[in-house]
Amino acid sequence: MEMITVTLGERSYPITIAAGLFNDPASFWPLTRGDNAMLVTNDRLAPLYLDSLSGRLRQAGVKVDRVVLPDGEQNKSLTVLDQVFTALLAKPHGRDTTIIALGGGVIGDLAGFAAASYQRGVRFIQVPTTLLSQVDSSVGGKTAVNHPLGKNMIGAFYQPASVVIDLDCLNTLPRRELSSGLAEVIKYGIILDAVFFAWLEDNLDALLALEPRALAYCIRRCCELKADVVAADEREQGQRALLNLGHTYGHAIETHMGYGNWLHGEAVAAGMVMAVRAARRLGQFSDADAERVSALLLRAGLPVSGPAEMAAEDYLPHMMRDKKVIAGQLRLVLPVTLGNAEVHAGVADDMVVASIKDCQA
Amino acid sequence: MEMITVTLGERSYPITIAAGLFNDPASFWPLTRGDNAMLVTNDRLAPLYLDSLSGRLRQAGVKVDRVVLPDGEQNKSLTVLDQVFTALLAKPHGRDTTIIALGGGVIGDLAGFAAASYQRGVRFIQVPTTLLSQVDSSVGGKTAVNHPLGKNMIGAFYQPASVVIDLDCLNTLPRRELSSGLAEVIKYGIILDAVFFAWLEDNLDALLALEPRALAYCIRRCCELKADVVAADEREQGQRALLNLGHTYGHAIETHMGYGNWLHGEAVAAGMVMAVRAARRLGQFSDADAERVSALLLRAGLPVSGPAEMAAEDYLPHMMRDKKVIAGQLRLVLPVTLGNAEVHAGVADDMVVASIKDCQA
Repeated sequence: MEMITVTLGERSYPITIAAGLFNDPASFWPLTRGDNAMLVTNDRLAPLYLDSLSGRLRQAGVKVDRVVLPDGEQNKSLTVLDQVFTALLAKPHGRDTTIIALGGGVIGDLAGFAAASYQRGVRFIQVPTTLLSQVDSSVGGKTAVNHPLGKNMIGAFYQPASVVIDLDCLNTLPRRELSSGLAEVIKYGIILDAVFFAWLEDNLDALLALEPRALAYCIRRCCELKADVVAADEREQGQRALLNLGHTYGHAIETHMGYGNWLHGEAVAAGMVMAVRAARRLGQFSDADAERVSALLLRAGLPVSGPAEMAAEDYLPHMMRDKKVIAGQLRLVLPVTLGNAEVHAGVADDMVVASIKDCQA
Repeated sequence: MEMITVTLGERSYPITIAAGLFNDPASFWPLTRGDNAMLVTNDRLAPLYLDSLSGRLRQAGVKVDRVVLPDGEQNKSLTVLDQVFTALLAKPHGRDTTIIALGGGVIGDLAGFAAASYQRGVRFIQVPTTLLSQVDSSVGGKTAVNHPLGKNMIGAFYQPASVVIDLDCLNTLPRRELSSGLAEVIKYGIILDAVFFAWLEDNLDALLALEPRALAYCIRRCCELKADVVAADEREQGQRALLNLGHTYGHAIETHMGYGNWLHGEAVAAGMVMAVRAARRLGQFSDADAERVSALLLRAGLPVSGPAEMAAEDYLPHMMRDKKVIAGQLRLVLPVTLGNAEVHAGVADDMVVASIKDCQA
């Protein structure tokens, strides 16, 4: 079992990583006998885990209600959020309830925002079931729903009471989603840790084969790297923005293509290659490292170019809605060397368009 | 001009109270030249203030967009909230924008929650235009929207950057809404300050005549009393719950009657009399003080009994959804003596019903 603590003063919390955690109700600390909980999950995971998990919690004396939401990024909406509130109020659940988010990023973001805003905030336990959510949503407290005009535009910074990562969940994860998670894993290497990037080059096959020891180390290392960044900059005033490498381009792809058609990690992978191209045009990064990034993404089953049906000029209007825009000026995260990145202000529009054209299939 | 500071560490902010503040853009600190702002108001206030206020801010170099929402408690909904997000994203406004809430409690709660959750939080200036919102929403950072199953069930604790109270707004306030505000004013006297209660008995006629000096003192004193409570207990773990005197009964009235049919202060006034009756049944408070409370409420034009069409038994199901319910147990704020109140746990259901029957017309 790997265990780390995310250090945020009185809002610090543990992340537990192991196979078989769902079999032990003690994994779901701080839930205890007599507590109320609302288990939020999606219709893909419900048949796999809902009955066994809620059964174990009930055996341990926790009163569990459940709400099953439609799967998919297109359902990360105010409308589906309202279904969670309706389920909570129908019982009704009080301010002392605990929301358990069992699922990937969509469920985590949506149930997390529900926890942040139901009765102005109730306790929240994250149970991420995809590699992407395990390495990304476990740390940082970002919760949100989408708006038709922009992704993650409505949300809150809200920390869970604990995060429970059962590696067994990855056995039922579609291969395309595993790859999507690897995009965020590779991102941590590019922006923060060249040694970890090299470890990924050596161990990618073990990760793709779901080798538990490799997975546990990989997830722990990503959570550690992210936890250090978030502890220094919880509300994204500075360094935390680096975690957005590839995301400004990637969100444009996701929004333009319609939520759910390109997976988040696929869009981020293409976006990271575009950011590498932009960096090269500014004389940063090296051709050799650019080649290593593309090669690793390809091995992980990820795209290194944007959608064929999306013109370079289609990106900009979406990118101008990015949360890093200040006073109408785009700011981009760009890699400097392998393991280092920076927020670059005042990138010219035509340079952005050129970096996208560099990556067109 | 009266000015007080709400002390909440780095989230401290000023409240400015005077007539004629709208004529001076400097009132809207910390907005400065070059800032973007979204002015949120309702369709009753827009014809009165929107053009003049946004004109003055534009003269001062602030870029102002506007969104006009339908008036009324029934519009404090997720659906109307979404209209604010759509207006912000249509431009688009970035994370550096400022939301200005020009209106009563509905606009303040709704625009405040929009500010708390748009891009996970943007700057927010409260401009309360009703007596109720001036004495209640100016302090405390509670924002929320309603759900069909319960009032204020979806929201956030979120502090404004400043609060601007222009007393001239009260000149256009309907008389019934002035009375509604006086219910909350009288509440502060009952729970926290017997001297202020006596001042209200002496000065109620001046307040009803909108005498500026009396109004300014009254609003400042209410804000001070609330600020002390909130500074000690921002997230309502203890003492802050006292501010809910009459609200558990009152919310039941508002929900049962349909939002907007009974004004908030009217429901709270009836609820406070019910809480006084419950206290009397427990041997607290005195008959003489109970009489003073009812007399002052009546002079202020407020009800001292619930709606004739609502049976005593209709209250409990709504009251059990109150945010003070813990482990299925109702907790009620009850007055102890004039100027003192407490949170009472374990009040028996039949005692609650009896206290409501005591007040039936």
